Amino acid sequence: MKNKPIALLTDFGIKDNFVGVMKGVMLDIAPGVQFIDITHQVRPQNIREGAFLLKASVNYFPKGTVFLVVVDPGVGSERKPIAVKTENYFFVAPDNGVLSPVLENEKVETIMHLNNSRYFLDDFSFTFHGRDIFAPAAAFISQGTALEKMGTEISKIKTIDFSGVKKEKQSLQGEIIFIDRFGNLVTNIRKKELLDFSGKKGFKAAVKNREIKRLYAFYGEAEEEELFFCEGGFGFLEISLKNDNAQELLSAAIGEKVKLEVAGND
Amino acid sequence: MKNKPIALLTDFGIKDNFVGVMKGVMLDIAPGVQFIDITHQVRPQNIREGAFLLKASVNYFPKGTVFLVVVDPGVGSERKPIAVKTENYFFVAPDNGVLSPVLENEKVETIMHLNNSRYFLDDFSFTFHGRDIFAPAAAFISQGTALEKMGTEISKIKTIDFSGVKKEKQSLQGEIIFIDRFGNLVTNIRKKELLDFSGKKGFKAAVKNREIKRLYAFYGEAEEEELFFCEGGFGFLEISLKNDNAQELLSAAIGEKVKLEVAGND
Amino acid sequence: MKNKPIALLTDFGIKDNFVGVMKGVMLDIAPGVQFIDITHQVRPQNIREGAFLLKASVNYFPKGTVFLVVVDPGVGSERKPIAVKTENYFFVAPDNGVLSPVLENEKVETIMHLNNSRYFLDDFSFTFHGRDIFAPAAAFISQGTALEKMGTEISKIKTIDFSGVKKEKQSLQGEIIFIDRFGNLVTNIRKKELLDFSGKKGFKAAVKNREIKRLYAFYGEAEEEELFFCEGGFGFLEISLKNDNAQELLSAAIGEKVKLEVAGND
Repeated sequence: MKNKPIALLTDFGIKDNFVGVMKGVMLDIAPGVQFIDITHQVRPQNIREGAFLLKASVNYFPKGTVFLVVVDPGVGSERKPIAVKTENYFFVAPDNGVLSPVLENEKVETIMHLNNSRYFLDDFSFTFHGRDIFAPAAAFISQGTALEKMGTEISKIKTIDFSGVKKEKQSLQGEIIFIDRFGNLVTNIRKKELLDFSGKKGFKAAVKNREIKRLYAFYGEAEEEELFFCEGGFGFLEISLKNDNAQELLSAAIGEKVKLEVAGND
Repeated sequence: MKNKPIALLTDFGIKDNFVGVMKGVMLDIAPGVQFIDITHQVRPQNIREGAFLLKASVNYFPKGTVFLVVVDPGVGSERKPIAVKTENYFFVAPDNGVLSPVLENEKVETIMHLNNSRYFLDDFSFTFHGRDIFAPAAAFISQGTALEKMGTEISKIKTIDFSGVKKEKQSLQGEIIFIDRFGNLVTNIRKKELLDFSGKKGFKAAVKNREIKRLYAFYGEAEEEELFFCEGGFGFLEISLKNDNAQELLSAAIGEKVKLEVAGND
Repeated sequence: MKNKPIALLTDFGIKDNFVGVMKGVMLDIAPGVQFIDITHQVRPQNIREGAFLLKASVNYFPKGTVFLVVVDPGVGSERKPIAVKTENYFFVAPDNGVLSPVLENEKVETIMHLNNSRYFLDDFSFTFHGRDIFAPAAAFISQGTALEKMGTEISKIKTIDFSGVKKEKQSLQGEIIFIDRFGNLVTNIRKKELLDFSGKKGFKAAVKNREIKRLYAFYGEAEEEELFFCEGGFGFLEISLKNDNAQELLSAAIGEKVKLEVAGND
């Protein structure tokens, strides 16, 4: 039986040898296993960004994929290393909330506290659990080891709140939750939320005192240098600038508020 | 029969989850398919840079490789998604000229407009055709689906001009078309063009008012801190600075002119 | 018999097509071979940094792995391309010292000067031996070609000194040899060296005029914004700043001295 593919998402960057070493460890346990890098450029120790990127990626992967997620500011402290089996996937991560958004959409079957050191790397360290605990766990799961052998079952994981769109009668307030390579500002507002809210009256929106008047189906519809909404690849409304970089124009950062109001009368 | 390898060349960067998600999509269609990343750091939406890097890479790959090329400023507009079969390779890309330089050297057999939505991702978007059209197409081709099923045959692609070296009697003018990680300035002038032009008389060259006097066979021949020509790995003349970074010394950018004249009398 | 995995460590970066092209070349020789990227972000032409990252990575990989190491400031000059077989691994690299630290721990069996051009790429260049000599050699070794066919046996490699911790009666002086993505300053001092030196009396240390008083088992033990020692994933003492970036605080660079003295009387 073939090893299941392992998809990696970390904040380890690609300058150091951290990711390569984790793959070496996994290859030793599960020869020939296929690795897919989702990203290693999560901002250092930013659990929310890791959680967002994971949630936005998982459904595109084949059933059975093992997700190895290491964004771990609490390495060496009391936070538990965990593995989660859902109807479709496996997840290995620290129990710090990074899995909570993605598991909202998954049918969870088993949650294990990974505390059986038989499945750790022999030379165990206090500072690099990615290599010593998480990578071996992902590799053992990939080649078919039952989760039940690897630790103690627990009933719930640490959660973080991720919805956060505030709805009032005349306004709706979201925020920027991610900025992509092209400078598109990904908000936490879904297209449907905007349309339900504005109805037939239309909307006016603002971010950093700049107005956004239009929602387009794709980039090509916008005017040159126009700031506009578009439903991006993540499934959320994104603020884009035609043929340019919205993030640079606005000096916008993650966390910036995005406010929508119902338009007067169009 | 084994899946053909897929080589990726995009401007998606590696910070976001774009490339990982495309690979997840492809793995679901073509389990175990091997991916090779050429680069994902093409400058955003720079078709000419993508075209250059593709042309400079293709011949080093095994026959049958599927090249998935996504540099796509016109996503969502009228530009066609296409797949091209040549004697040796397959190419999947937007029809915006990015394939035109590489296909000058290839024997083209079939060009398909990818318009059969049976081979698209089910949840089709207007903003991420890399994931929704191009990645599935590359994966279907990899596992042996005939191009003919995937769309409508067309007879030609959009072309961009890429030669651009201007020859006059006493001078030859090229330009910088790429700058590598080491700061070497890749020109569009071939070594043979320089030698044919200068003959036995030798040459004198200038870029940004700095003189270049010598062409060396390899870096080691140059003097310390000397600016010189070398035939680089791309098959073009490159301007290098011994033990240092030519790009930083000259503050040179892509598009900068490089002028050669025949030397007086050596 | 399956191809052996190939682990890559270079200073080629990921902006250019260098690494992708090397993989294309290898795939043509050894179809389906698995590649693991250790890193391609060694600082350009920095042999010592490459040597450090290689030594810190090798033991995590399965036996039989082929390490393709290209940090090659002398490309085209007299330095030899070599391949080394040890009890556990294979190494392909320029003979410029980059292999010397890792081979201190390995039982060397054969060292070959790779000078048989039958195993080079056909279109041989003077500037990109990574593609033309080293990548083909790694691929041929991966699929089982005997080293003996590929060149002439030699008896020793070029070495570089890498220990460098100076011990005096009352002090011990090391230096920063690597800085990771999180700003942790990796020294060349091992935990055991510190403990043997300080004994029961404890130590006081300084780097760039800042004091370091404590050695912790893991990050979580430190105080907020405290500068401290920790044994990092590389097996050396690292200087870290709790919840922050030690490199930025200290504007520290590689080569900076780290001085330890025995504490007065604790």
